[in-house]
Amino acid sequence: PVEKTEKAKPALAAKPKKGNKVSLKTPKGTQDYNPQQMTIREQVFSDIKTCFKRHGAVTIETPVFELRDTLTGKYGEDSKLIYDLADQGGEICSLRYDLTVPFARYVAANGVLNIKRYHIARVYRRDNPVMTKGRFREFYQCDFDIAGEYDLMVPDSECLRLICEILDQVKVGKYLIKLNHRKLLDGIFAICGVPADKFRTICSAVDKLDKSPWAEVRTEMVETKGLEPAVADKIEAFVKLSGKPFELLAKLRETKMCDSNKDAVEALNQMEVLFEYLECFGCSDKILFDLSLARGLDYYTGIIYEAILTEQDRVGSIAAGGRYDGLVGMYGKKDVPSVGFSIGIERIFTILEEEYTKKNQKIRQNATQVFVAQMDKSLIKERLLICTALWNAGVNTEYSYKVNPKGGNQLNYANDNLIPLVIFIGKSEMETNTLSVKNMFTGEQISIPREGFVTKIQDLLSKIDMNAIPVTSNTTSTK
Amino acid sequence: PVEKTEKAKPALAAKPKKGNKVSLKTPKGTQDYNPQQMTIREQVFSDIKTCFKRHGAVTIETPVFELRDTLTGKYGEDSKLIYDLADQGGEICSLRYDLTVPFARYVAANGVLNIKRYHIARVYRRDNPVMTKGRFREFYQCDFDIAGEYDLMVPDSECLRLICEILDQVKVGKYLIKLNHRKLLDGIFAICGVPADKFRTICSAVDKLDKSPWAEVRTEMVETKGLEPAVADKIEAFVKLSGKPFELLAKLRETKMCDSNKDAVEALNQMEVLFEYLECFGCSDKILFDLSLARGLDYYTGIIYEAILTEQDRVGSIAAGGRYDGLVGMYGKKDVPSVGFSIGIERIFTILEEEYTKKNQKIRQNATQVFVAQMDKSLIKERLLICTALWNAGVNTEYSYKVNPKGGNQLNYANDNLIPLVIFIGKSEMETNTLSVKNMFTGEQISIPREGFVTKIQDLLSKIDMNAIPVTSNTTSTK
Repeated sequence: PVEKTEKAKPALAAKPKKGNKVSLKTPKGTQDYNPQQMTIREQVFSDIKTCFKRHGAVTIETPVFELRDTLTGKYGEDSKLIYDLADQGGEICSLRYDLTVPFARYVAANGVLNIKRYHIARVYRRDNPVMTKGRFREFYQCDFDIAGEYDLMVPDSECLRLICEILDQVKVGKYLIKLNHRKLLDGIFAICGVPADKFRTICSAVDKLDKSPWAEVRTEMVETKGLEPAVADKIEAFVKLSGKPFELLAKLRETKMCDSNKDAVEALNQMEVLFEYLECFGCSDKILFDLSLARGLDYYTGIIYEAILTEQDRVGSIAAGGRYDGLVGMYGKKDVPSVGFSIGIERIFTILEEEYTKKNQKIRQNATQVFVAQMDKSLIKERLLICTALWNAGVNTEYSYKVNPKGGNQLNYANDNLIPLVIFIGKSEMETNTLSVKNMFTGEQISIPREGFVTKIQDLLSKIDMNAIPVTSNTTSTK
Repeated sequence: PVEKTEKAKPALAAKPKKGNKVSLKTPKGTQDYNPQQMTIREQVFSDIKTCFKRHGAVTIETPVFELRDTLTGKYGEDSKLIYDLADQGGEICSLRYDLTVPFARYVAANGVLNIKRYHIARVYRRDNPVMTKGRFREFYQCDFDIAGEYDLMVPDSECLRLICEILDQVKVGKYLIKLNHRKLLDGIFAICGVPADKFRTICSAVDKLDKSPWAEVRTEMVETKGLEPAVADKIEAFVKLSGKPFELLAKLRETKMCDSNKDAVEALNQMEVLFEYLECFGCSDKILFDLSLARGLDYYTGIIYEAILTEQDRVGSIAAGGRYDGLVGMYGKKDVPSVGFSIGIERIFTILEEEYTKKNQKIRQNATQVFVAQMDKSLIKERLLICTALWNAGVNTEYSYKVNPKGGNQLNYANDNLIPLVIFIGKSEMETNTLSVKNMFTGEQISIPREGFVTKIQDLLSKIDMNAIPVTSNTTSTK
């Protein structure tokens, strides 16, 4: 996980000092992020926050570790992946495994009756990391949830609309949102003859259909989970169905496949309401009503959904969520019905990083607007005075930390860092009380009076389109 | 640490369900942050990042836990405060204790030769928490460092200038930056006759002078640390000296107090260079040259500084740092000289929160610009269509999640959340194909055509000064 930065000497990273026992690596499944990576990540965070704020969401923060009790019994088999803190006396704690359980604990602990919040933060899983595929032990989750007693499918439909806005905003390519309803699935299981106590385990098996063929899932149902073969075959007839929202709904009603189960009929009626709202939101064309979608987590009680990328080489889940009306009630006195989703933000980073690499495009890592350079010796104090005037006016300004830097090094630094303007001072500028200013994007150089130069610089900056950054390959230099 | 939110029912937080064993509290020394608190915190983060970016800084990210080896032997006596992860097989890890050691590890591991980075992230200390004073076990640090082989005092002076910019920006009141030099302090110890192997422990004693009177510190030196009483008395003559930079410098030179030690003379010459740069940066008036400043950490090798608030009721450290040229070399093959500082951001939060409470000023927690309300029944789909058009144009818009919400509840929500515009639809608006729009700040209400309404709304929003939020006491309501 040792990352190269733009100024990396990889040989150093590999060979620590002889006899030096201090380890340089980060723990397994974690990594450092260099300024270039951080630039992409912060842009994505900012884009996603813009979407959340467009829908009026607030944000909260919870501790990175919780009392172990808070996490116990929430994650089923995956509980073994929870990181525990050492018992150093006092409370027994574990690192958070996701943001949903801390959210439910927050809502209950603070007696919140309704909240629409987003939370972007890191979570921890002692999973087998596959760093190249973006699977880490420490990774960001990006959650949005609406908690509160509201009317049928109103907040649910906004969640789906918001997923579309976010995926459009971050430009990860084409996608589809698979959609199903837990009550419909349970109704179908009942219709097929699955014993009630096997609903959740059969649901887990169905959840594997996105990765495994039906034959394998059937074997798991029959041989591992003891389902009657005839029951499994009945399930197949349902879970192979998917289609456009209103089309599949019409088909299920025409064939009366679900009519024998009250819950299934009710779920279909709910789906109809949802589909109507999604039409209003202009995102029906992104929805695939898919009876094979099951979702692994136990706590879902209503609609469930999963956004998948559909372009070549970009298959897989990119966002997922659903309605969970019972989770807050596990902590507090009162149930607070909730619906929400999590964006697979690490996957988005991986995709966008690959794109930058492919395009071989330079990334502006800092926001510097002006570099102040000297072309003759003994001008450091003049440079500091110029920087001070610019900083005082809010202009992002850098200068060399050498007392007598070389002209070429200063220009290279400005070039490499895509700094649009360079101010030069030398003997002649000092004598004439002027500054030379070069536009690094156009190559144009002008002379301006020292008196009132800050206003002139701001004027020049206002005319530069910072989005028109020249596309070049990376080069390196030192200041 | 259970926090009330704007919709809190505190009684719930205190009484979990009978027989419910799930704990609702956060671990000792940690807390939840509600949307109101987060609004203040995010504003401070944003202000500080603006300052960092004004100076061309980039940012990095490191894991929240490090291999335990990485942290071992860096924090002296404070090592006992490090949080360890449980040994669950595999590597032995601990939560980071600060951001400086991970930064040094990062620089060494990635072979970085020069970097100017900021890092805002949480760190962990098993300290005795005093929540009311802003002392937590989990808290934010906000670090800025310049690493690289540069010329004398050039990056050092920029660090001091940047501290001033940040403290001015976040408006925490008047402050002073105490400044000293480790080599000057060591030279003074030598002049006074402190044995070389006692330099660091005597330095730790001097460090307590900001909290304890000289008599106490002298006792520690003489009785606990075995210093000759006469030596301690000589130290007193130095550490009681402080003053304006050039004034104290002149005094030390005139009195020849330091002339017998080469290192001390050299340090004074370095300070002179620094003071000249600080004059150029326009921040000399914020500097107090103070021989009693020692700083606790062992790794400083050059200038050290500590910013303190000087207004009534706001005494204490708010930022601190210094030069550490040897720390990166403890990890890598190569020394990378570094200088930097840490801003006491949790203190800043505490101060600003108190100010908001004192002013009883409402804080806008979300960024919603328009609320879409219905005044007659069965208009939910119309509301969704209006929201969709506004979202598509990038307007931050909310609506009620009830199918037939009460008019008053909708208005109260808009009012409580300081949403500037409310769009009303009812039977008459539907019949005339219009929308009623109310400016919630002025009370003015107009009717606009439904056709092309988005442009008209954007036009109305552009004329509203969002900084002119009405100051009222907090009220609560539900949507």
